[in-house]
Parts: sequence; structure tokens; C-alpha cells
Amino acid sequence: MFSKVLVANRGEIAVRIIRSLKELGIKSVAIYSTVDRESLHVQLADEAVCVGTARPQDSYLNMKNILAAAIGTGAEAIHPGFGFLSENSQFVEMCEAVGITFIGPNSEIIDLMGNKANAREQMQKSGVPVIPGSEGFIETVEEAKKVANKVGYPVLLKAAAGGGGKGIRKVNDDNELTSLFEEAKREAQVSFGDKRMYLEKIMTNVKHIEVQIFRDKQGNVVYFPERDCSVQRNKQKMIEESPCLLITEEQRKELGNIAIKAANAINYVNTGTIEFLMDSQHNFYFMEMNTRIQVEHTVTEMVTGIDLVKAQVKVASGERLPFNQNDIQINGSAIECRINAEDPSKNFMPQVGKVRYLYFPVGNLGMRIDSDLYAGWEITPFYDSMIAKVISLGQDRHEAIEKVKRLLSEMLITGVKTNQSFYLDILKDKNFLDGKVTTEYLEQNFLPKWKEEHKDAAI
Amino acid sequence: MFSKVLVANRGEIAVRIIRSLKELGIKSVAIYSTVDRESLHVQLADEAVCVGTARPQDSYLNMKNILAAAIGTGAEAIHPGFGFLSENSQFVEMCEAVGITFIGPNSEIIDLMGNKANAREQMQKSGVPVIPGSEGFIETVEEAKKVANKVGYPVLLKAAAGGGGKGIRKVNDDNELTSLFEEAKREAQVSFGDKRMYLEKIMTNVKHIEVQIFRDKQGNVVYFPERDCSVQRNKQKMIEESPCLLITEEQRKELGNIAIKAANAINYVNTGTIEFLMDSQHNFYFMEMNTRIQVEHTVTEMVTGIDLVKAQVKVASGERLPFNQNDIQINGSAIECRINAEDPSKNFMPQVGKVRYLYFPVGNLGMRIDSDLYAGWEITPFYDSMIAKVISLGQDRHEAIEKVKRLLSEMLITGVKTNQSFYLDILKDKNFLDGKVTTEYLEQNFLPKWKEEHKDAAI
Repeated sequence: MFSKVLVANRGEIAVRIIRSLKELGIKSVAIYSTVDRESLHVQLADEAVCVGTARPQDSYLNMKNILAAAIGTGAEAIHPGFGFLSENSQFVEMCEAVGITFIGPNSEIIDLMGNKANAREQMQKSGVPVIPGSEGFIETVEEAKKVANKVGYPVLLKAAAGGGGKGIRKVNDDNELTSLFEEAKREAQVSFGDKRMYLEKIMTNVKHIEVQIFRDKQGNVVYFPERDCSVQRNKQKMIEESPCLLITEEQRKELGNIAIKAANAINYVNTGTIEFLMDSQHNFYFMEMNTRIQVEHTVTEMVTGIDLVKAQVKVASGERLPFNQNDIQINGSAIECRINAEDPSKNFMPQVGKVRYLYFPVGNLGMRIDSDLYAGWEITPFYDSMIAKVISLGQDRHEAIEKVKRLLSEMLITGVKTNQSFYLDILKDKNFLDGKVTTEYLEQNFLPKWKEEHKDAAI
Repeated sequence: MFSKVLVANRGEIAVRIIRSLKELGIKSVAIYSTVDRESLHVQLADEAVCVGTARPQDSYLNMKNILAAAIGTGAEAIHPGFGFLSENSQFVEMCEAVGITFIGPNSEIIDLMGNKANAREQMQKSGVPVIPGSEGFIETVEEAKKVANKVGYPVLLKAAAGGGGKGIRKVNDDNELTSLFEEAKREAQVSFGDKRMYLEKIMTNVKHIEVQIFRDKQGNVVYFPERDCSVQRNKQKMIEESPCLLITEEQRKELGNIAIKAANAINYVNTGTIEFLMDSQHNFYFMEMNTRIQVEHTVTEMVTGIDLVKAQVKVASGERLPFNQNDIQINGSAIECRINAEDPSKNFMPQVGKVRYLYFPVGNLGMRIDSDLYAGWEITPFYDSMIAKVISLGQDRHEAIEKVKRLLSEMLITGVKTNQSFYLDILKDKNFLDGKVTTEYLEQNFLPKWKEEHKDAAI
């Protein structure tokens, strides 16, 4: 087992990883940018190294400085968290080259799954159903039209190397396709150095369902109960739950076995999540695979009692998976709300400022708040606006919702506006309570009504 | 189900009960003394009624004012928490008389178990082994000597109606017995209006093991995995764990069945805890039964995933137990440390003062802090010095200990001294880690050494 691990991240996920390292008796090294000098993750780590100035490119994406920090402190492994360098195969190669263990899959797997068109093809080969669309890459606009007409408009034109919304175009008909195709290719070339495109049908009335898998170097593999992440705004997940209310035990197993087959086919190592869309007939379609820990791993931890970050560290060090499929039981129902420093009444504009007063109401059973906040901490504009994850576990979905409502109604953050109370409105929405919300519901149905009701607050 | 419940308590247990009521959708009424006007339990409850001035006798023990508050707010039931009126059969009778449900057993059971000599006799009748001592009451010093010589000195002379250390004498030989007998009787008469005495052998090299049971009005009954509360100072529990490291699955069942037999024999209703001493040969001896929720119910909740306060409310309202014996599984190992406002370096002298800064490090899996603290709250000298319970759940005892150490090392309370860091010293003690600590260990072995090592801090 490692004796020292560097955490190449910031915010709540860095805090969360450092805490698991502590509990494992492993020394932790934090990295930080100049504006994060007094951040919680720096205070909690055993050592901390400044790796650059505020801009992510200069610090949290600064591969050389981060590697130098690892080498300089004698860290034997790097945990990348999510975002930043977590799915950067070049960084993984650099780690491999200097003999530092990257806590995640190897660079080939990250490359394979990072190229969305290749991942699609790979999944199809493994017998995983994919969203109707092109096979492999699309070179010309004529090819694109042929596929689009076959699967039916509207379609999404996507950069194969893409991510983060770059190089993606929604296309409604042949004319739009003609006018947008070259533009999207150019954007892909600029953004990713790779102009290859592919195309997928836009599926409506679907849920976002994902399955996390875990595979060790010995080839042992398990799947976890699915997560329902259908409550989204601006393609960002807002609420995640596990299990999904609508999925039967039989479907769960089926989905799990699909995920395991896919993981085995590519000799996956460590944890990853396969994201699916589920239509109203409960057909599943592969969207993409995340080759890292996800924000919402917490609901899986709550519902199974398994610490996924600890397992990541153990598997990366060469140990066998510390659990088998039988150990993974569903003990109730868990839900997470992502608290962002943003103002819902001003179109969710990100907010900055100093946290004046902070109260985390974490008594009683099944409550968890993962956060890097403390009273006195200053939220800056340089990074993601997520500042806390409020999570509860109930014996059933109803109790989990009542618990997270209690947390949200008692939690107190002053000095900076958050979307905290916005969640209380979602959590009493009848469609949400019925578990029938699709990925479009929040923006198309809930938000217009909500904005109308809250228009006075925006003035 | 009740629509409104009054919580006849203060501090963390009042907060904890109000939170469960909220999650059940039941309105809560807080009571408070004049110095508790700004306490957290008052802020969290739907309504709050001032029942008197600071002295417990004037407020939290003021039965008439509390009943008037319940009647005036339309509360249908009263949850007594622990301490204060929770085992006062007169109060229970008053509740019964005005048609308000007391959330606990009826007054006859409280009376029976409240009289320690009667409880002993009752348990013997039910086939529960008791600590060697007198049968029934002891009237004369001659009788006392006979029993003491039979079971062997040293013995404890105890007031049958006793509690809280009053009317108890440790006796080492016949001479001491002669000189202390009448004095103890007088103290018992003054303290409890009942001079009847009984006598028990003082058992050494024993662990404090207790079993919580739950029985509904329909007669369904379950037991919970045992708690080990052997780390004590001044007869007060400091650390509680569940399960006990030394107890086998077979012994657990045996002990559970003894507890169930005892509960059935007296037609017990609601939850209660039977406390045993366990000797080095794992023989169990009945000590007493607590007919209320206990401070340390939290570790049982963590390890089983069951909310015991919610179950109390449901059973009191006439519902069946919401779980059966098979639902009660041991999911790992839980531990609790009781944080008191006291100064370990000054012989644990209670401390008062305003909480200046507060940080609860509650991220990650299996963490819980039950507390009524908030930044700005002022701790007064009128009540128990316990201000927080820091609890963790691990997959095994080692992980639970690592987790609670992390919580204790990150938690920040300024403005008032606490025993927080004292726990970090206990938690690294080899004997504690081996799970072999007996009830005398902390005071006789650990503390003298600790005081020696920390004598500079006391200056």
C-alpha cells in the first residue's frame, strides 16, 4: 500500500479524498493555486504544494508542476478526483513514465473511452446498445445527412474527441446540417486538435441512468446499483439518486451485466461509470463512459456502505477488490443535491464572496454533507461553482427525500447566494416525487413555471 | 399517527428528537427555560413554550408547566428524551390522566424498574442472572452483614429507589457496614422518600454490556446488538461501541433472548435497555434497566440503519414495530465519543462560555455529530455538560476508530474548553484498541498515567 498520495484536485472532492486517505493511514499531499492557499483541502492535508496561479491552466491543469510536486514530496501515487486532469491520458502517460501510480485506469483505456466515437464502437462490439447514430466517424456532410435521415432529426453532431459541450451542434434538418457541419469540425479541431465527428439521434422523454463498475487488476469485477441523474439543468446534473425508483431488480441485474461485459471487454481497471439513456419502455442506450470517480459516487456509497475512494486507492496499489458482488446490497435509498454558489433568481449566475456564517445540520441518521466550505472561506470566480453536496440515506425514497429536505431547510450559508432553497421547490414537485422526471423536465416544464412564480425575486 | 408532539427536554437530544419528528411530518413543540431561549432546539421546533427559569426544578422538571404547554399547544404526545422526567412515573401518570400519550412505557413498568431492588427480583423471576447480593430489601445491619459475608466484600449498599449515585455506599468490611448502614438509609429517605436498601457484590474486572429491546403494544419484540460502554469516568460512560468486539454471534443471541424474556415477562412497551456486567468468563449479571431512550442509542442506529426515535413515536401511537428481528443486521461497527464542556487538565471541571467558532467535519461515509451547538451559542452552568456526540460507522472496529479519530482531529470548537482532544489519547491506547478495557480501566490505569503526562498543561 502507498505511504503517501498526492491529490491533484481542489474543493470538496480534494477534501473528500484526503479524508479517506487519513482514515487509511496514508499521508496526503495537497496541491493548490495561489488563491486557494487557505482552502480546506490545504489545511487538512499533511503537506501542500503551490502549483501555480489562479487560472486552471496555470495550476490544477499544470501537469509538469503537479508531477514535480509529487516527485518532490515523495508521493507514490496521484488521485486525480474528477474534472481537471482526471481523464487526461497524456498526464497518465507522464505519471507512468516517472513511475508514479495514477489512481484510475491506464492511458489506453482513457484514450479509448475519451474518444466518444471509438467508445460507441467499442460498446457496440461488446453488445451494449448505443444511441442510434453513425457507425464510426463521419467524414463528409453527405454521409452525415444519410445517417441523420436514417435515424431521424433532430440529431446531435458531436466531436469524437469532445467533452464539456465543445464541438457539439443540435441539428434539426438537412439545411442546418449543411451550414453547421464544417463549423463544428473547425471548433473540434481548435478545441481538441481532432476534427473527427460523429452523429447521434436526440432522444426525448428519457431518463439519465448510469451504472458504476469496479474492476481490479486481477480481473475481479462488480457493478453497483444504478443512479438516476435525470434532474438536470444546462446539461449539468442537479439531483442524483440511487437506486432508480422505476427499475426492477431484474432490470438492475441485466444492466449490471451489460456494464460488466463492457468493462471486461476492454480490461478496465479501477472504477468507471457507464452512462445510459433509458426510454419510457425501459430500453437502455449507451451514452458515454466516465473513467474516473464521479461527483455523485456519494449516493452509491450511502446506499451500499462502501467507500469507493478507499477502494480506488487499494485497487490502484495492486490489491484485490475489497468486496464482491454479494457484498453490494441496497440498504434503502439515497439522494444528493449539488449546492452551487449561484443565484437561481438571476438565471443561476455564479456568485462569489466570503462565507460569513456556516451551519451544517448533520445530526441524526443517514446525513452527509461533503463540502470544502468553512466560515471565513472566500469563494473565488476561478473554479466550478459547486460548494457542497448534501446527501441523505433513507429506508426508502420517501424518507431520503424528507431527510434531504430537512438538511436543506436547516443548513445555513451566509455571505454568498446559493441554489439551496431552489432545491426545496424541486423536492416538493409532484412529478419529481413520482420519480418520473426525464432529462428535459427541469428546463422545459419546471423552470418556466418556477421563473414565473419567482419573477419578483429577480428585481 | 400524532400530528403534534412536545419534546420535554433540551440540548442535543431535544434537537435529535425534533429532527426525527420533522422527517415524519409531525409538528414539534419545544419547551425551554429562560436561559435556553436562543437554543437550537427552540429554533428548530415548530413552536416553543417557556416553562420556567434556569433551575431544572423550575423548568425542565416542572411537570405542571410542561403539561400545560402540551395542552395549550394541542400536542397529543410527549417525548421525554433521557434524564429529566424520562423515568418519572408520577409525570407519566399525569400524562395518562389528561389523555396525553407519554412516549415510553406506562407508569407501572417505570415504577417496577425504577425500584432497583424490585427490578432485581423481577429479573431473577424471569431467569435473568443478577449480581450476587440480597434477595429483596434489607431491613437491618445484621441482615446486611450476613449477605455481605456470603457474597464477599467489598459490596455496594444501595437505595432501592435510587439513581444518580445518591444513597450508595461502597463497603469494605463489617465495621464499615455498621457505621454506614444507618447513614445511607437516612440519605435514601431524604433523597427518594424511601429508606429501603439492598446490597450487591462489587464486581471487578468486568465490562459494561447492555442490550436494547423494543416491544410494541401487540407484543412483538426484538433485541438489538449489544453495546460495550466500558470506557467510563466517574460512573459516566465516555465511549460506547456496538457491537462488542469480544462477544460472539452465539452469545449475542443468548443475551438477546434473555433480554426478550425479561421484556415479555413485564409486558414492556416501547424501548428500553437492560444493562449487564460481563466478567472475564463472559458471564452476564443484570445491573439495571433503563426505561427510556439512552444517550448511546446512536451507535445502535448507525450499525443497524434503524431510527430508534421514529420507532418510539410509531409504537407509542399504537403502530406495530416497523421492523422484525431479521431486519436488525450488524452493518459494521460503530463508536461514539461524548463531548463535554469540561477541562480534562483541571480534573474535568465543567466549563461555560460562548461558542466562538464551530466546524463540524462531517463529510464522507459513516459520520455523525449530534449536537445543539452553533457558533454564538452560550453554554451555561445549569445543565449537563454534554454538548455533542461524535459518532462513526466503519466496516469494522478499526475503521470506525480511524473515522472517529478523524472527526475529533478536525472538529473545531472555540470559546469553551472540551474533552475533545482527551479522546484522541484514549483512542490510541493499546488496551483500548485491543477491546479489553473494563469499567475500572480508565480511572485506575489510564488516567493516572495521563495526568502524569499532562501535569504541565494544568498549570
